[in-house]
Amino acid sequence: MTTLRQAVASEMPRAIEDLKAYCGQPSVAAQNLGIADTVELVRRLFTEEGARVDVLENGGGNPILHVEFEGPSERTLLFYDHYDVQPPEPLEEWTTPPFEPVVRDGRLFARGSSDNKGDLICRLAAVRALKRVYGHVPCRVKFLIEGEEEVGSPTFAGSVERYKDRFQADACIWEFGMKDETERPLLYGGLKGICYLQFTVRTMDVDLHSSMAPIVHNPAWRLVWALASLKGPDGRVLIPGFYENAGGPTDRDLAYIERIPWDVAEFKRYHGIRELWQERGGRTLSVPEMVRDYLFEPTCTICGLEAGYAGPGTKTVLPREASAKVDFRLVGRMSPQEVLQKVRAHLDSLGYDDIQVESLGPEHPYQTSLENPFVDLVWQTAKEAYGKDPVLYPTAAGSGPMYPVGNILEVPIISTGCSYWGSGAHAPDENIRLEDFEQGAFHMALLLERFGTTSEERRRQG
Amino acid sequence: MTTLRQAVASEMPRAIEDLKAYCGQPSVAAQNLGIADTVELVRRLFTEEGARVDVLENGGGNPILHVEFEGPSERTLLFYDHYDVQPPEPLEEWTTPPFEPVVRDGRLFARGSSDNKGDLICRLAAVRALKRVYGHVPCRVKFLIEGEEEVGSPTFAGSVERYKDRFQADACIWEFGMKDETERPLLYGGLKGICYLQFTVRTMDVDLHSSMAPIVHNPAWRLVWALASLKGPDGRVLIPGFYENAGGPTDRDLAYIERIPWDVAEFKRYHGIRELWQERGGRTLSVPEMVRDYLFEPTCTICGLEAGYAGPGTKTVLPREASAKVDFRLVGRMSPQEVLQKVRAHLDSLGYDDIQVESLGPEHPYQTSLENPFVDLVWQTAKEAYGKDPVLYPTAAGSGPMYPVGNILEVPIISTGCSYWGSGAHAPDENIRLEDFEQGAFHMALLLERFGTTSEERRRQG
Repeated sequence: MTTLRQAVASEMPRAIEDLKAYCGQPSVAAQNLGIADTVELVRRLFTEEGARVDVLENGGGNPILHVEFEGPSERTLLFYDHYDVQPPEPLEEWTTPPFEPVVRDGRLFARGSSDNKGDLICRLAAVRALKRVYGHVPCRVKFLIEGEEEVGSPTFAGSVERYKDRFQADACIWEFGMKDETERPLLYGGLKGICYLQFTVRTMDVDLHSSMAPIVHNPAWRLVWALASLKGPDGRVLIPGFYENAGGPTDRDLAYIERIPWDVAEFKRYHGIRELWQERGGRTLSVPEMVRDYLFEPTCTICGLEAGYAGPGTKTVLPREASAKVDFRLVGRMSPQEVLQKVRAHLDSLGYDDIQVESLGPEHPYQTSLENPFVDLVWQTAKEAYGKDPVLYPTAAGSGPMYPVGNILEVPIISTGCSYWGSGAHAPDENIRLEDFEQGAFHMALLLERFGTTSEERRRQG
Repeated sequence: MTTLRQAVASEMPRAIEDLKAYCGQPSVAAQNLGIADTVELVRRLFTEEGARVDVLENGGGNPILHVEFEGPSERTLLFYDHYDVQPPEPLEEWTTPPFEPVVRDGRLFARGSSDNKGDLICRLAAVRALKRVYGHVPCRVKFLIEGEEEVGSPTFAGSVERYKDRFQADACIWEFGMKDETERPLLYGGLKGICYLQFTVRTMDVDLHSSMAPIVHNPAWRLVWALASLKGPDGRVLIPGFYENAGGPTDRDLAYIERIPWDVAEFKRYHGIRELWQERGGRTLSVPEMVRDYLFEPTCTICGLEAGYAGPGTKTVLPREASAKVDFRLVGRMSPQEVLQKVRAHLDSLGYDDIQVESLGPEHPYQTSLENPFVDLVWQTAKEAYGKDPVLYPTAAGSGPMYPVGNILEVPIISTGCSYWGSGAHAPDENIRLEDFEQGAFHMALLLERFGTTSEERRRQG
């Protein structure tokens, strides 16, 4: 009889072709690019596999896909994935075009390969492998696939509430996970929240010759001064009350943090990072301190700046407008609404009431309870699939709409996936390794097998 | 007999066609666009008019044109002009394409129409009108036409030194001038200097996911903090020693400043300026104070900012690099080399030694002596041509390579030209009014006539 591992291996050629087709279809929510075609592609993929697929209206946002496979067990495992991807810019830094997937040296390069199209196809491959071995999936399997994760899932929470009966489940596997520089798979029990703000300043209707500088307000200067008032060179956020709901790691979190390895030298070399923040001023790096900051520090990050002329050579222009994109990552009981209000009040108190602040895609932080036996099941199956002890992060440093899923569906959630330390999610040359892709699929197949079996056993024992 | 004014009027249709052809030829030095074709166009224009034209090597920079018309008088008037223009971006803000000149409502719209292609054609039209009336120009006329004014004329000073015998003259008319909001023509006796710097910060080789914020240095933050250290929200430049060679207006300068009118309400309305710098905090505006700041304050201006993602929607990216373009306008005895050194030392003292600072096109400030009779001749002929008292600015707020011309050729220099308060030099929809174009040409024709006559009379009186 075919083993599950062999069945997964047999599914790989087809899964790679599916992944190429899926990544070859642009689906940039921020640019409203290719959404309808992508929904159709995903719908077809799962329908052909015998699933029930419904395309759900999502409060005016990009549709949500509800995919469901029946299984002999009454327990249900829910997968959360998203079909949208980050914008591919800067295009000139891609070795090959972002939406023309190509395999080089055992890696598949394309926008979305890591975040998170690879994971969805991985999970589909796991379902196919289980059907190959058992003729069916061993439990009920649902997918919740949304299309606005990369723009902050603005209408998602309302839709989870609206469709909560459809998506009822006993546990949830979140979209992503990766191997770190030590090649150990990482599992995550939570996500930071996010408050993504666009700052815009305009002081006149037209660009002026820069000789006008002594007599007009320069929006670029106003923006720079306002930004500098948000966070100081010591890294401390200066917005009054910013940290008051941030909390911090519990003793249990700290115990996990102590066990998180990090090949710092390789990490720095790979990304060409000159110096880590925790090394500034000649400090000696403490890895647990760095990991603690990474997972439990709220942040204030300039993601983009734009004003005036930034082309080659000189242009002596005084720009009429300047803008910045700033994301705040939230922890503990911080909320995006609270951060927005505090930023606004802070700017107003300094006389920057002319600076417009627009909120784009707020999300709450969320941490699952690590006591739930599902956490251990994911850990054990990962260990078996990867042949290594997985590393459990009490939370990830990234964000996503885990809060509504965890709170409304009341399920334990663990995030795991098929990326690796060099995947470059959100960056040019995003990629996954095909070896990880196969291992990830095997992990998901094992998890589904055990999840169903555990259920069967329970019922028999019941 | 045809009067000079009539002769100028007769030249207008041809001059407008020439100006359209000249503005239709892109010549963006910053983008190395269309330089050779533009040189050929100018060479042909003047050669066809009977001038001697030499295209001079300019230390590896874009060539300089030497144009010369013989005249009966031994006195020589030199015109300084430039054939290069500012970059046309942002293209989407032009009503019609920047390099497709078009006349609407008596105005000719095109990049370069005001700065300074209109002036050159104006001066050519004056020469043609004089030939039409007298059969020849009444004095020797030279043009020095360079091609890197908009990028700070990096090799120009060396070339003026090298070709100083060719360009010997008794007086010089500089490139530009305009009518202010009160419709009076402005004359300028000097220019500010400039130190245009490009700041670049890179902290790693690739863009990262913004969740990495707690553990890496964000170049956009380093740039913002460094910029905020250069100038405070009160407008004061914070670089140690920045003001020490700035001097200030003399009593004579202040007397001129008192006579400079400014229709502030119209100026604000036209550019959609919300508030003037001198009105901040509810201050009552003093026009002479504003004019004094405009002409005699050294500046530090952000002309451009760029980092990360600035497109639509969100991208949670931590950029690998951030950059800014900053221009400093210099007055008194300030030098661009001195400012560059002080900026570098200031950044280093604050730990920003990783911020690269590159100097692009430095220029010294220059003021001509207002005692010279040539100043009065330009003023009197302007009064006659325009039918209004001109306004003499002891210096302009803009910059250009007046310092080498004034110092090496030892000529008095006055700047005058055919723009107006709404010309929008360096901005989208740059334009000149055809009425001003004709008056400007008549002013130049009158000036050449008197300049030659004065010389003839002097010789007779000899």
